[in-house]
Amino acid sequence: MPVDNSENDHTGHSLDQLNQALSSGMFVHVRNMLQKMAASDIALILESSPPSARQVLWQLIDQEQIGDILDELSEELKDPLIRSMSPERVAKATASMDTDDLAYILRSLPDAVYKQVLQSMTEQNRQRVEQALSYPDETAGSLMNTDTVTLKPDVNIDVVLRYLRQRGNLPDTTDTLYVVDKQDKVLGGVRLADLLTCAPSTTIRNIMDPDIQSIPVSMSDSEVAQKFERNDWVSAPVVDRDGKLLGRITIDDVVDVIREDAEHSMMGMAGMDDDEDTFGPVLKSTLRRSLWLTINLFAALLASSVSNMFEGTIEQFATIAILMTIVPSMGGVAGNQTLALVIRGIALGHIGQSNARWLIGKELSIGFLNGLMWSILVFIAVLLWKDDMALAGLIGSAMLINMTVAGLAGASIPLILKRLKIDPALAGGMVLTTVTDVVGLFAFLGLATLYLMH
Amino acid sequence: MPVDNSENDHTGHSLDQLNQALSSGMFVHVRNMLQKMAASDIALILESSPPSARQVLWQLIDQEQIGDILDELSEELKDPLIRSMSPERVAKATASMDTDDLAYILRSLPDAVYKQVLQSMTEQNRQRVEQALSYPDETAGSLMNTDTVTLKPDVNIDVVLRYLRQRGNLPDTTDTLYVVDKQDKVLGGVRLADLLTCAPSTTIRNIMDPDIQSIPVSMSDSEVAQKFERNDWVSAPVVDRDGKLLGRITIDDVVDVIREDAEHSMMGMAGMDDDEDTFGPVLKSTLRRSLWLTINLFAALLASSVSNMFEGTIEQFATIAILMTIVPSMGGVAGNQTLALVIRGIALGHIGQSNARWLIGKELSIGFLNGLMWSILVFIAVLLWKDDMALAGLIGSAMLINMTVAGLAGASIPLILKRLKIDPALAGGMVLTTVTDVVGLFAFLGLATLYLMH
Repeated sequence: MPVDNSENDHTGHSLDQLNQALSSGMFVHVRNMLQKMAASDIALILESSPPSARQVLWQLIDQEQIGDILDELSEELKDPLIRSMSPERVAKATASMDTDDLAYILRSLPDAVYKQVLQSMTEQNRQRVEQALSYPDETAGSLMNTDTVTLKPDVNIDVVLRYLRQRGNLPDTTDTLYVVDKQDKVLGGVRLADLLTCAPSTTIRNIMDPDIQSIPVSMSDSEVAQKFERNDWVSAPVVDRDGKLLGRITIDDVVDVIREDAEHSMMGMAGMDDDEDTFGPVLKSTLRRSLWLTINLFAALLASSVSNMFEGTIEQFATIAILMTIVPSMGGVAGNQTLALVIRGIALGHIGQSNARWLIGKELSIGFLNGLMWSILVFIAVLLWKDDMALAGLIGSAMLINMTVAGLAGASIPLILKRLKIDPALAGGMVLTTVTDVVGLFAFLGLATLYLMH
Repeated sequence: MPVDNSENDHTGHSLDQLNQALSSGMFVHVRNMLQKMAASDIALILESSPPSARQVLWQLIDQEQIGDILDELSEELKDPLIRSMSPERVAKATASMDTDDLAYILRSLPDAVYKQVLQSMTEQNRQRVEQALSYPDETAGSLMNTDTVTLKPDVNIDVVLRYLRQRGNLPDTTDTLYVVDKQDKVLGGVRLADLLTCAPSTTIRNIMDPDIQSIPVSMSDSEVAQKFERNDWVSAPVVDRDGKLLGRITIDDVVDVIREDAEHSMMGMAGMDDDEDTFGPVLKSTLRRSLWLTINLFAALLASSVSNMFEGTIEQFATIAILMTIVPSMGGVAGNQTLALVIRGIALGHIGQSNARWLIGKELSIGFLNGLMWSILVFIAVLLWKDDMALAGLIGSAMLINMTVAGLAGASIPLILKRLKIDPALAGGMVLTTVTDVVGLFAFLGLATLYLMH
């Protein structure tokens, strides 16, 4: 019974040894090491390796492990590795995969390869996969497995046990069997635990939970994840519009959705694709990141053109130019705090019609309080540094204005973007920074210009 | 069988109706509505309500539901609500909770209340909880439940079934029973599914999985979460140093850890506590956010003092002041992209000793390529705008320098912070922005000063 006693040591160690063996060209040794490892550990090693090492490792991996490893790899690694395989090998490697995972892989293949993979499959597998592919991406349907085991309500546990023993096994992560009527409509669920602990004479109808919640096949995957999280589910039945059982969703796939959604918010706010490969090729990464930098260049030029409007003031008074970055900077940080809070609230499903106005009001108040506090502090700081009461007063007033606007903008921008069906996690940060930069510069330089005119 | 057919409609609807009833003072109606709702829905409503409404709702909730609702609430809501309850009520409401969840709640109570709650418990519960409290926070021990059901290896399924039927039920989220020897050391695991599908005469030893991985009680909760994610576990046994079974961890608690870790990265990068309450009180929120703003004020003053060093240049040439924010801004965005990627890589356990240098080299290359590309673009933009070849050249060169530094800093800062045991998600963004601001201003203003001197 292996006990893993040290943080990351196990994989860290293997990784170092593997890399040494790889770079010394001891490929047979590497192959032997890989054979002894679990698929999830090999997946981790692939994720943590530069592209060149990945290709070599991929060649050395046992054919039989490939399906399991593909299952564990992230999207950005899976695609190029699969494309490098022949359709027959893909079909063979993926034969034992769950339908939902296989459909996921097929979706990303070029059309020609995809058709070849389908043709290399057994008829039964092909039908299963084609059905899975008919559900749109990022819905309950695309997360769903069709390998459900169903029971009729009027049999007793003894009969069920005989049936299950004859059947021989249950699909992975089965914790509940679904009870259906003749039209395949879900009547309830019976936990495996209850089948084991109740008397053999008990009728299924008496131990099934009739209040089991079904998931409509068109529900978005993020909402499915929220439901699993809130209700501590291990699996849940998926039904069509009429309540007919189509399949089931299991927690292992939901965990991936939760991770992806959370990464999406975090990476999106930093202007990155969430499927960017940490160890991917340089040129590809450079190009993928340039969209955000292009937008930022326009935002920065916009801010500069605001300063440009006040060129006269800046010429007259260089200290203004020196201090003019402080106000936008503080507004940006304050606004981003609010933005992160609201984006998380949207992702968790906490923010809706009924409380959005309240939330904006609250963040506006915080912005104003922040503004008061920081206008006083920056007033004191600038007074001490530059010994100029008027200048300190100008920057303090601009700070109050910009921090208040930052609170309002941080709360309302993601809500507006969401209503416009634009992803707040992706676009929110850039829109917000532009607002706080422009307002901050306008407030400070504008007030300074008004002051100098008198 | 309820089928939820529309996104968030179910709770959104109830929330609106509840709010209406609340604001019209129809408390009896609200109480009736709450009684019909699931604990997880009530928790969601509490999370989505302003503090005043929360207190009223809390008074109206059925005593019997309180334990289940507390279980679903986030930390920042749980604490104030529990503090408002009498110790006896806390003890009563939490009697049916899992040990790990109860220990989690007790940890956050003031000492006096905590002792009173313990005293109001039954002897057996108190012992269970005191043991759970002995494990440090954020370790496998603190996530663990002690309600494991164990089997001996030499009995057959028939005996096990008789034992289980006598026992009457199994703890929630049980998918595997652990097989232990006389010293309680874990020998393997038997899936409930196998107990149901194998012949009654089968000996446990023959169907148990002897390769089941145990989790050491001192493993960090983030690493536990990574293991669950990679291996698609529903539950896993927790053992002490000698391999003795102490308890088990279930996926529902792991999902919370995954969500919290991901939120921590996202909120941390925006300078927010991850346990900040979206609908919390204004004054508290203002104060919690001020640490980051204080640090940013110092960073902004530092950047201003860099500009201050070049006051003469700015006085001579106001256009420089107008353009000087572009270089730091682009460096900040590029650096943040790298930072987000590396922080995610650290969180996923993909970055270690063996590949850190490679990663820094890769991001440095991307930074340099980015720098080349953007220096050309900004050169063209400024040339078109200001029609000044020298100025365009200066800003282009500064851009190349700052983008290259941004790539290097974005990759190395989180790795250095991690080695210093400082949380990269929290401190990384601020350190990085300070570096890109200071280097960007130094490069542009310094080059301009050198140019003007000739």
